[in-house]
Amino acid sequence: METTSGGLLPRVVIVGGGFGGLRAARALRHASVRVTLVDRGNHHLFQPLLYQVATAELSPADISAPIRGVLRRQRNAEVALAEVTGVDVDRRQVSLHDLATRRDRTLDYDYLITATGAGTSYFGHDDWEQFAPGLKTIEDATAIRRDILLAFEAAEAKGAEGATQSPDLLTFVVVGGGPTGVELAGAIAEVARKALVSDFRHIHPADARVVLVEAAPHILATYPVALSERARRKLERLGVEVRTSARVESIDECGVIVDGERLAARTVIWAAGVRASPAGEWLRAPTDRAGRVLVGPDLTIPDHPEVFVIGDTASASQDGAPLPGIAPVAMQQGHYAATAIRRRIAGERAIPPFHYFDKGTMATVGRSFAVARIRRLSLSGFLAWALWLGIHILFLIGFRNRALVLFQWAWAYLTYQRGARLITHLAAEARVPATIPRP
Amino acid sequence: METTSGGLLPRVVIVGGGFGGLRAARALRHASVRVTLVDRGNHHLFQPLLYQVATAELSPADISAPIRGVLRRQRNAEVALAEVTGVDVDRRQVSLHDLATRRDRTLDYDYLITATGAGTSYFGHDDWEQFAPGLKTIEDATAIRRDILLAFEAAEAKGAEGATQSPDLLTFVVVGGGPTGVELAGAIAEVARKALVSDFRHIHPADARVVLVEAAPHILATYPVALSERARRKLERLGVEVRTSARVESIDECGVIVDGERLAARTVIWAAGVRASPAGEWLRAPTDRAGRVLVGPDLTIPDHPEVFVIGDTASASQDGAPLPGIAPVAMQQGHYAATAIRRRIAGERAIPPFHYFDKGTMATVGRSFAVARIRRLSLSGFLAWALWLGIHILFLIGFRNRALVLFQWAWAYLTYQRGARLITHLAAEARVPATIPRP
Repeated sequence: METTSGGLLPRVVIVGGGFGGLRAARALRHASVRVTLVDRGNHHLFQPLLYQVATAELSPADISAPIRGVLRRQRNAEVALAEVTGVDVDRRQVSLHDLATRRDRTLDYDYLITATGAGTSYFGHDDWEQFAPGLKTIEDATAIRRDILLAFEAAEAKGAEGATQSPDLLTFVVVGGGPTGVELAGAIAEVARKALVSDFRHIHPADARVVLVEAAPHILATYPVALSERARRKLERLGVEVRTSARVESIDECGVIVDGERLAARTVIWAAGVRASPAGEWLRAPTDRAGRVLVGPDLTIPDHPEVFVIGDTASASQDGAPLPGIAPVAMQQGHYAATAIRRRIAGERAIPPFHYFDKGTMATVGRSFAVARIRRLSLSGFLAWALWLGIHILFLIGFRNRALVLFQWAWAYLTYQRGARLITHLAAEARVPATIPRP
Repeated sequence: METTSGGLLPRVVIVGGGFGGLRAARALRHASVRVTLVDRGNHHLFQPLLYQVATAELSPADISAPIRGVLRRQRNAEVALAEVTGVDVDRRQVSLHDLATRRDRTLDYDYLITATGAGTSYFGHDDWEQFAPGLKTIEDATAIRRDILLAFEAAEAKGAEGATQSPDLLTFVVVGGGPTGVELAGAIAEVARKALVSDFRHIHPADARVVLVEAAPHILATYPVALSERARRKLERLGVEVRTSARVESIDECGVIVDGERLAARTVIWAAGVRASPAGEWLRAPTDRAGRVLVGPDLTIPDHPEVFVIGDTASASQDGAPLPGIAPVAMQQGHYAATAIRRRIAGERAIPPFHYFDKGTMATVGRSFAVARIRRLSLSGFLAWALWLGIHILFLIGFRNRALVLFQWAWAYLTYQRGARLITHLAAEARVPATIPRP
């Protein structure tokens, strides 16, 4: 058995407790290593359901599992609540800023797995962020939930004052027609037309206008065209205006300019671009245009077979096409990295390259419709939605979350009500200078 | 039927969507009035369970119900998300700052019900607030939850660094031995001894020290002495140090000074004092020392029989003793105010005074023990806890919340795990200057 100087077991440092990092940690549970998982949050986030927090169907804790709880029986693993500030690949050392003690420290490693995910990219227009928040964290989701609910509140208040309504108050623009944008737009339309329909006295929430803007000719561009057309028709039946081949030229406090036309909107949500975490800078490794680290077939960086990069942070291709930034890729890569480390420790030198096994992809549109591609099979409608439901429940970590989420979905499905319509940090927010267009 | 000028139905403005205000609104559902309920939050908060959010057992949305949702079928009621900035009792007009539009407006009333509750009082030591937060709002609860979880994280990080532990990191001081303080101290002890026990590698969470400080000779001072003694023994069995007849002399970033002795503690929580909302100032009405408005036997203020003050904002006595600041008092007063308004509108002039019907009080200590006084009967132990459980589930508004909370309690009871161990706004918090004692 390989040991480090001092006779201790080799240390594997995993940065990031998302799908990739957590899967890698779990896959090392029987390995003769010491695992340290570093994350700047204390919870694993089930990101595919984040849009349901943003639209008041689920609570933050329903889609979060404390990382320490997930690993509590894995005695060879420990967890650090810290931000990585740099990596010295020659010394094999990670620099941390501990978030609980607010002190800096370093951590030596024998193997490093970098799984720090991605953030929102505004394609060089960072000034758009203040007007069109992205959806990547729990805080993003509760802020968007607040924005959506406050838009209806503002329209109701204008009605109560007897002022004429300005249509921009109840116009919601979602930029980006990938799965997140499609799911958000469908959910916002349902909130307006179903959940809130009896809540107000001076407005009709169903009058809300929801616009989905996509630059490509089709929404859900990675799906077969027939499926993306079916998703579009479903969105339109829900009352969403879908604009494809449409270019966003600017975003400001009054709304969006799309192909020269102004869409006046109080609420704009950005679901268009993704940029990898700064792992490439830490590792001084070459990256692609989106900041993703270019990795070899074994997911390591050049000259450092002990440094793995996985998930949304890595730029990997297969059969000539780039691998998509989705949870199954990250999980399979996490499992691969863990297996590769075990084999190396066991003395193997020839490790077969990573191969992604594509089980398919799916996206949901509203509360009983989804589109799914499973291998070469295309599915849409209620059956695809039932499948989406089953798979998402299955992969939610922790029985408690599963049962809670299932209960809340059943409740929302049967009653159209959304229980998590909670506006928090409102007083703090109210003190912030207004960015609302005033008539 | 009484109408206002213009032939419209009389308008009842209710300020505050807590137990008193919401009960008043519901009790007016068949009355020939227009009801406007004003609250600066969009949700009714089930305050008696707030301590369970602070100790990671429940999520904020579990103990919150959107006010619009509660009143959505009551067509004579509307809701305003606004802060009251003043009341002109002569013009019968409330001034509002609308939180969604950020504009000021006024609201005329024929009857006003003020039910704005109470905040935390530091008895003239407002500088203690930054070191010892109170527990009154959802934001307070999630901030305390973060403080508690971060204390364990900080101790673990010190252990991982190899530094010697400073015992203050895992010392939790709760100031105030009323129901909130007792429930908090018991829950923190259980979190340390049960929920977190396998989560760490460098510390034993069970080593945490929990101290409950009370100035009076007994905790739960409003209960029979035998009951408060039983609660004390139960707390001590859970590992809580209970200090009665103990005076807090000062609170700073290093902890608390109690009777001249320093208790070094990173986490101090204030559950000692309550101060009424500024309703007395708005109404220019006489108040008691805690800021509560002195009301007559019909809960109105002098010379203004159309202005009711109820709940924690009112200072009312019965049989020579002041009424306690608890939900049943507020709810009965809300019902009374609504009935009095209906009778006045119907032309009655002689309205019988408010009478509080005392069904009893209860407080829970840990996960299967409570003390209860029901009329003259004293109960403690598991049976009292089962009763506490039943009553709290019964009064939680909305079936969804009830079923969710019941499920989470059952889960926590069976597994000792707490699912809502979520630290949010951590990054934002980490940027705030440290108030942690550095060794």
